[in-house]
Amino acid sequence: MGRVTVRRPVLKLSHQGERSRPDALAAEEPLELRIDGKAVAVTMRTPGNDVELAHGFLLTEAVIGDREDISAARYCAGTGPDGRNTYNVLEVSLSPGVAPPDVGVERNFYTTSSCGVCGKAALDAVKLRTRYSPADDDCAVSTDVLTTLPDKLRAAQKVFDSTGGLHGAGLFTTDGELLVAREDVGRHNAVDKVIGWAVQSGLIPLRGLVLMVSGRASFELVQKAAMAGIPVLAAVSAPSSLAAELAEEQGMTLIGFLRGDSMNVYTGADRVLR
Amino acid sequence: MGRVTVRRPVLKLSHQGERSRPDALAAEEPLELRIDGKAVAVTMRTPGNDVELAHGFLLTEAVIGDREDISAARYCAGTGPDGRNTYNVLEVSLSPGVAPPDVGVERNFYTTSSCGVCGKAALDAVKLRTRYSPADDDCAVSTDVLTTLPDKLRAAQKVFDSTGGLHGAGLFTTDGELLVAREDVGRHNAVDKVIGWAVQSGLIPLRGLVLMVSGRASFELVQKAAMAGIPVLAAVSAPSSLAAELAEEQGMTLIGFLRGDSMNVYTGADRVLR
Repeated sequence: MGRVTVRRPVLKLSHQGERSRPDALAAEEPLELRIDGKAVAVTMRTPGNDVELAHGFLLTEAVIGDREDISAARYCAGTGPDGRNTYNVLEVSLSPGVAPPDVGVERNFYTTSSCGVCGKAALDAVKLRTRYSPADDDCAVSTDVLTTLPDKLRAAQKVFDSTGGLHGAGLFTTDGELLVAREDVGRHNAVDKVIGWAVQSGLIPLRGLVLMVSGRASFELVQKAAMAGIPVLAAVSAPSSLAAELAEEQGMTLIGFLRGDSMNVYTGADRVLR
Repeated sequence: MGRVTVRRPVLKLSHQGERSRPDALAAEEPLELRIDGKAVAVTMRTPGNDVELAHGFLLTEAVIGDREDISAARYCAGTGPDGRNTYNVLEVSLSPGVAPPDVGVERNFYTTSSCGVCGKAALDAVKLRTRYSPADDDCAVSTDVLTTLPDKLRAAQKVFDSTGGLHGAGLFTTDGELLVAREDVGRHNAVDKVIGWAVQSGLIPLRGLVLMVSGRASFELVQKAAMAGIPVLAAVSAPSSLAAELAEEQGMTLIGFLRGDSMNVYTGADRVLR
């Protein structure tokens, strides 16, 4: 099974001089996802929770709608140079009646609209595919709860503490209770693992919940939250333009720069109690 | 032509109360890259320097070796909802004799070795493909110069100042002179733009230079630097395990946590003068 951290020597230089010591680095390995024998995606990820990652990825890429759409997920016999299973190839079997994705599942969301490749096409593609739009979710969360989330997420990031090298994502109730947190070298993978946990737990759509992420909010992260029906996405850093546009169109609440006691609310301010 | 920032209203909440004001967000739009009419990649990027992005991407994905391998690059007639060109589809024509990539150029580096999908395969794939390994580059850079780079890069990030939402990459001489800096919502795109600038300028391989990035150092960033022949990669944050392994195998110097007067040297410490 994959390692979450890897130790290697590092030379630390500062005004105090230099010293060599072992350091823990966040593990990064490729994962190939296969559906019924055919490779559909390769992602660089931190090993661990790979079955969650697959469930989350397939839900947020509109291949599945819930856990019933997957009949089995298991590591293939991929053999590394040492003769052992690499645990880097995950084979998913879809349930009867579930259509496998076309080649290049990653392009699903960028190129399918009548206008070709553009931001509007990406927005339209999400609208077309999401089964659980959060627009009608009337939950609310207070600023007092929101300002506690970054520290709670950080406290749950065990590997970040030792490596400083992982993105985190956490799913919270509107009372600020942490349901699940995951870490990964890729921010999209951390979100897929969180959502995949929810898929496997039978919790989709994720009504009345808040997804908190450690970094920035890109289009892709808003897309993933929207596909899972999450009404509130909060980020420690900045959103992109297209992230805000998608959140608005999907009726989501998007919060950025959530630090200390302050935050920026870009869309859906009616869900923020103050 | 695409916009680098987009203004939209934001509600700022803090202990000082709430106020609504316009805010600048980093622009994010999909870019489809086509080679001789066939789509080979789609990336979410900040518009601007797209021809550089294409040159850098194709060099670091081992499709081209220098600028002579591309005969033309131009925006296709992709029409948006307003009837105007979206500037989101870039068509590249390869020179005679240059082989186009197989479908799925992004997978080039993860799945080609005899051991299937694993970190070792990814390392082997870079070894197989790089034409400009930096291993024999005997340049050196002092810690005094290195510690000035983060501030110089930050000073060159004009859009970051207004949005807080962009990754930066900069190419420096070992004397600390900035040659070029680029920003993007995607860290790999910022690096591709910098390297693409160098391709277009006829500067490949990038001997004796330092690439500085604003965030973490992943496998992918080390791969891109190695493909361009860059001997020193410095990052503000942590590297991943596979990033350090690749840097070591490629004979590159990898520096992380470059902040204030301190830094961690993971590989190639002989190029760091102290």
